[in-house]
Amino acid sequence: MLIQLQENLADPTLDNIFKELKSFGFKASLVETRQGKYLICNGRQETDIRYFGSLPGVRDIHIVEDANKLVSRKWKVHDTEVRFEDGTTISRNDLTIVMGPCSVENEEQVIRTVEFLKENNIRFMRGGIFKPRSSPYSFRGLGIEGLKFFSAHCRANGIKVVSEVMQVSQIEQMYEYVDVFQVGTRNSQNYNLLDELGKAGKPVLLKRGMSGTLDEFLASAEYIFSNGNENIILCERGIRTFEKSYRNTMDLNAIPYLRDKSHLPVFSDPSHGVGIRNYVEPLALASVMAGADGVLIEIHECPPKAFSDGDQTLDFYQARRAIYRLRETMELRKRLVVE
Amino acid sequence: MLIQLQENLADPTLDNIFKELKSFGFKASLVETRQGKYLICNGRQETDIRYFGSLPGVRDIHIVEDANKLVSRKWKVHDTEVRFEDGTTISRNDLTIVMGPCSVENEEQVIRTVEFLKENNIRFMRGGIFKPRSSPYSFRGLGIEGLKFFSAHCRANGIKVVSEVMQVSQIEQMYEYVDVFQVGTRNSQNYNLLDELGKAGKPVLLKRGMSGTLDEFLASAEYIFSNGNENIILCERGIRTFEKSYRNTMDLNAIPYLRDKSHLPVFSDPSHGVGIRNYVEPLALASVMAGADGVLIEIHECPPKAFSDGDQTLDFYQARRAIYRLRETMELRKRLVVE
Amino acid sequence: MLIQLQENLADPTLDNIFKELKSFGFKASLVETRQGKYLICNGRQETDIRYFGSLPGVRDIHIVEDANKLVSRKWKVHDTEVRFEDGTTISRNDLTIVMGPCSVENEEQVIRTVEFLKENNIRFMRGGIFKPRSSPYSFRGLGIEGLKFFSAHCRANGIKVVSEVMQVSQIEQMYEYVDVFQVGTRNSQNYNLLDELGKAGKPVLLKRGMSGTLDEFLASAEYIFSNGNENIILCERGIRTFEKSYRNTMDLNAIPYLRDKSHLPVFSDPSHGVGIRNYVEPLALASVMAGADGVLIEIHECPPKAFSDGDQTLDFYQARRAIYRLRETMELRKRLVVE
Amino acid sequence: MLIQLQENLADPTLDNIFKELKSFGFKASLVETRQGKYLICNGRQETDIRYFGSLPGVRDIHIVEDANKLVSRKWKVHDTEVRFEDGTTISRNDLTIVMGPCSVENEEQVIRTVEFLKENNIRFMRGGIFKPRSSPYSFRGLGIEGLKFFSAHCRANGIKVVSEVMQVSQIEQMYEYVDVFQVGTRNSQNYNLLDELGKAGKPVLLKRGMSGTLDEFLASAEYIFSNGNENIILCERGIRTFEKSYRNTMDLNAIPYLRDKSHLPVFSDPSHGVGIRNYVEPLALASVMAGADGVLIEIHECPPKAFSDGDQTLDFYQARRAIYRLRETMELRKRLVVE
Repeated sequence: MLIQLQENLADPTLDNIFKELKSFGFKASLVETRQGKYLICNGRQETDIRYFGSLPGVRDIHIVEDANKLVSRKWKVHDTEVRFEDGTTISRNDLTIVMGPCSVENEEQVIRTVEFLKENNIRFMRGGIFKPRSSPYSFRGLGIEGLKFFSAHCRANGIKVVSEVMQVSQIEQMYEYVDVFQVGTRNSQNYNLLDELGKAGKPVLLKRGMSGTLDEFLASAEYIFSNGNENIILCERGIRTFEKSYRNTMDLNAIPYLRDKSHLPVFSDPSHGVGIRNYVEPLALASVMAGADGVLIEIHECPPKAFSDGDQTLDFYQARRAIYRLRETMELRKRLVVE
Repeated sequence: MLIQLQENLADPTLDNIFKELKSFGFKASLVETRQGKYLICNGRQETDIRYFGSLPGVRDIHIVEDANKLVSRKWKVHDTEVRFEDGTTISRNDLTIVMGPCSVENEEQVIRTVEFLKENNIRFMRGGIFKPRSSPYSFRGLGIEGLKFFSAHCRANGIKVVSEVMQVSQIEQMYEYVDVFQVGTRNSQNYNLLDELGKAGKPVLLKRGMSGTLDEFLASAEYIFSNGNENIILCERGIRTFEKSYRNTMDLNAIPYLRDKSHLPVFSDPSHGVGIRNYVEPLALASVMAGADGVLIEIHECPPKAFSDGDQTLDFYQARRAIYRLRETMELRKRLVVE
Repeated sequence: MLIQLQENLADPTLDNIFKELKSFGFKASLVETRQGKYLICNGRQETDIRYFGSLPGVRDIHIVEDANKLVSRKWKVHDTEVRFEDGTTISRNDLTIVMGPCSVENEEQVIRTVEFLKENNIRFMRGGIFKPRSSPYSFRGLGIEGLKFFSAHCRANGIKVVSEVMQVSQIEQMYEYVDVFQVGTRNSQNYNLLDELGKAGKPVLLKRGMSGTLDEFLASAEYIFSNGNENIILCERGIRTFEKSYRNTMDLNAIPYLRDKSHLPVFSDPSHGVGIRNYVEPLALASVMAGADGVLIEIHECPPKAFSDGDQTLDFYQARRAIYRLRETMELRKRLVVE
Repeated sequence: MLIQLQENLADPTLDNIFKELKSFGFKASLVETRQGKYLICNGRQETDIRYFGSLPGVRDIHIVEDANKLVSRKWKVHDTEVRFEDGTTISRNDLTIVMGPCSVENEEQVIRTVEFLKENNIRFMRGGIFKPRSSPYSFRGLGIEGLKFFSAHCRANGIKVVSEVMQVSQIEQMYEYVDVFQVGTRNSQNYNLLDELGKAGKPVLLKRGMSGTLDEFLASAEYIFSNGNENIILCERGIRTFEKSYRNTMDLNAIPYLRDKSHLPVFSDPSHGVGIRNYVEPLALASVMAGADGVLIEIHECPPKAFSDGDQTLDFYQARRAIYRLRETMELRKRLVVE
């Protein structure tokens, strides 16, 4: 059971609700976000919930049988829209394209990428400054100094910054410079990090674990939401299977599934999902027809020289073509599928 | 190495080619289809192949390092077109839609489905008459009597018959009544069956094994081709992974991969690929944007009454909408992606 | 519900039982093996089954909720013992070791292997004469002629023959020469083959599908049993996972699981399960401690010269050491685990 | 290439080695542990390494082609022994049994468990005080206060404390109270945490990621070692596969593989590996025969009342029996397998 509370709730009113819930055997957790206050209640299923609906302070009440209640569509049928201070939104009405290099390498690279994005009217740039690498002897990113110039050039051009955070202590370091915290696949069940991102409040782009079930994925989002942050974007990025012809196996089934079960926006990352340059665009277009609200694509002025993941990275010519085709595909979807 | 031979080749000329290959240490297999004669040669890589190119009887010669040579795009850059006697084709220029029930249940059902397909200008009907079932106590199909009326109604209406064959002895039984033999996922490595379908010559729709790698999938096609039949359609139908939210995990990465590595047409079966009715259409549309040449979709006048797989089956209303959207999506792909 | 029938049952008595079952809404299938007659009944769960127990002709009656009733331990708590005409048994009281080459290559090889097995008191020899190969251009086995001399040498020395059957037409061909039909991983859901092996009656060593769930595995055994053959050995042989450091991932969890859920003997095939020579013995020993009733191990006088699977094959020295260690391990298990 | 350096190395000698390496195109990383100093060198393979062997300050030099050099057996053929201050060791000569509850629940529970362990001469107790849970509304452990009494009772009885650390900030908090830091499956690629555990120096029990390849697993160990800590125990705990009959699929192939490729001790955790109480012991015994140096087993005085993971937990009677059988099995292995 999920209870939406009224906005300006006096403490005694809240205490009374807790007391009533307890008397019926419910355990309740209070969640407070910028947009609302909620009680997540676990307990007996057979109670007649109308009684709680009549209590002072209660705005609305929903039966949500899903384990992950706050992110479920069962109580919130409208799609969540992530809204930034300047009015930019991530929503179902427009395809969000996020592009940029795997790793931020130097200032010159950032300048040229920003220029390319601006020319093509792309509002979000991705770029790694803390890099999880499978060998301790590999390049592990420029760190916070890289983020500073990355952020400066983006903001001077009205572009939002998306970058991966790997541990709690980096949240504060990065906070001022990013617009969207990205949580990578290896940290998708790093619950301490999710808790703190919930408290930090900035939008979070949460990638699915490489072997994470969709229930676990939604549970990770629930961690963020239940700590007070509902600005969450779910991102499918390929899972680990027996097939070794490509880096990962993109699971596009996840897109209609997540759209159906949750109200959160759903993105797709075909660069990691397949890991082979020539197949990135077809899978990006496929993602849009499957229902994705956005795509992440790795680009680099000269992919063979990229510090990391060059094989899956588009050059600017390929990126421009993909942008055009993605937008045309989104137009078709909007025309065909009236949701 | 793959050698294309000239058409009317005298025996001594062929003997001479074999002798020459042997003297250079190559082991050669002769393959003869309706469209050509080939020698598949395994042996030393470092030979200068131009010498063989100058032998009498040799039309062309190709280095094909892939394990599965005949189905590889390395020697045949043009897409294979499957052509039926009445001029119907399965090709890259048009989207082939195959629809029908999981199981053929009775004549009335066939009549109504054929009617629906005709109205919507669909040229292929699928329907199972031999059903592989995980319990020996389940309905296992109407058998050959069902195929007879299924076939009769289709042919009276210019519709081609696609049906699954499960063992060698059924090939002869079914031959007269089907236009395309379907090989199911459980038989994708039933090599005796593939051998015999290669000899039978009718087009084969080959489904990927539920845990088959793409290399194994192409090897299965190579079995059919090397027995003399090049009319093969590869069909992705979902693989088995850790994810249990849906029946299988559709692997759409496979579509651009197979299109790239092989010249054979590539279909997609979203009904089995996801197994949940509401997600079938978005995944069918996604398949088209990923590059599929055709889709298989299970339909039934009343899905809840279907003998098998009702949960993943569209009703006629949903099917009609899907057909329209699939055709619009194909139009967009043809406009955007000039191949 | 599973009904054990009395032995010499008159037709009218049986008809009456069917009639009574039908009147309570049950669908019943009659199964007849050398050891008994059974009715497998699917239908309403809430019936009081004691009524059926009182019908003439009924010996015993069991509630079996498992989907695969005949192979379930729910009605047959004692372990099934496979018994051959000469009194040899496969049972829980003794470890059955099956050894031999992947492929039968020539008569000399068979003679030497038989000699080795006899010296070491091994009662079963495996050897492939029909080989499923992933490439159509690979060696596909000596065929029935190979089986003839393989069988002759074994029988002259009191050794039983275990060999893989790949299709229905081979059952009759092989029948006279084999003692145990092996069903390979690729055919574990070839239901026509399983049906016919059920009718043939000889013991069947059934390998788990490389991506087969244990429920599917038991369903395949149910196919054989329900066609009249209860002499079935279940064999774990490794499954397909994301891990590529070895050929397959041996699933030893399956051994206690299958022992718990089914009364059939359970074997282990570490040669295929790991596919790397040096790891075969430790995994064979582990299988015994996990509860296996038998192990299959590939051996060859000179593994590097083996036609197939040499990398996972033990030489005679290694095999002799493994036999000794396996027997010591079995002694320990019998001492420790009183079942 | 891995260079072992002499112990008391003057700075100029080291500088000279770096200079020489650089002039040959090698990139070198210095690693310093309590037991030695190493240079990990990546660069040209074809160099004649004997020249470096003759440089002042170099003790020994090894070609190590493995990506993860420090943990590789290529340079260190002897098994690593983890040694504690009181002389306790974790080594190949004795089976280490680690037992305890999934979660530490209260002091009484700790007291009784310690008593049980002492009676049975078990030297290590596990117990979770920070619990990663898939739902944010579940019990997440007693935290540091729980660790304090857990640690006090263990130490008063000569038992070592093994407990999971989930993030960098907890290392310092826990340091005084634990003897072995456990890294859970969800954090097996939390590289920041691994770096810091490398610096902290206390023994680390590193669990394999639930979908981690063995190469990734060794890379995670390399992170710890390359930060200065060679006291690492690798622990197989089951992987994620398509099979859903048990919680995870124990991968016992990993045990001989890891023993072969690395010099680090290898443990097995059958409680998580199968997740079903009755199968835990057979898989523990199997692990020993496969070559495990230790096992982790969850126990609880009353499993049905456990706060978490009760289904896979042994009670004290079952635990006592398992200890006896494990020790007998280890005796057999030591007798049979002379390593």
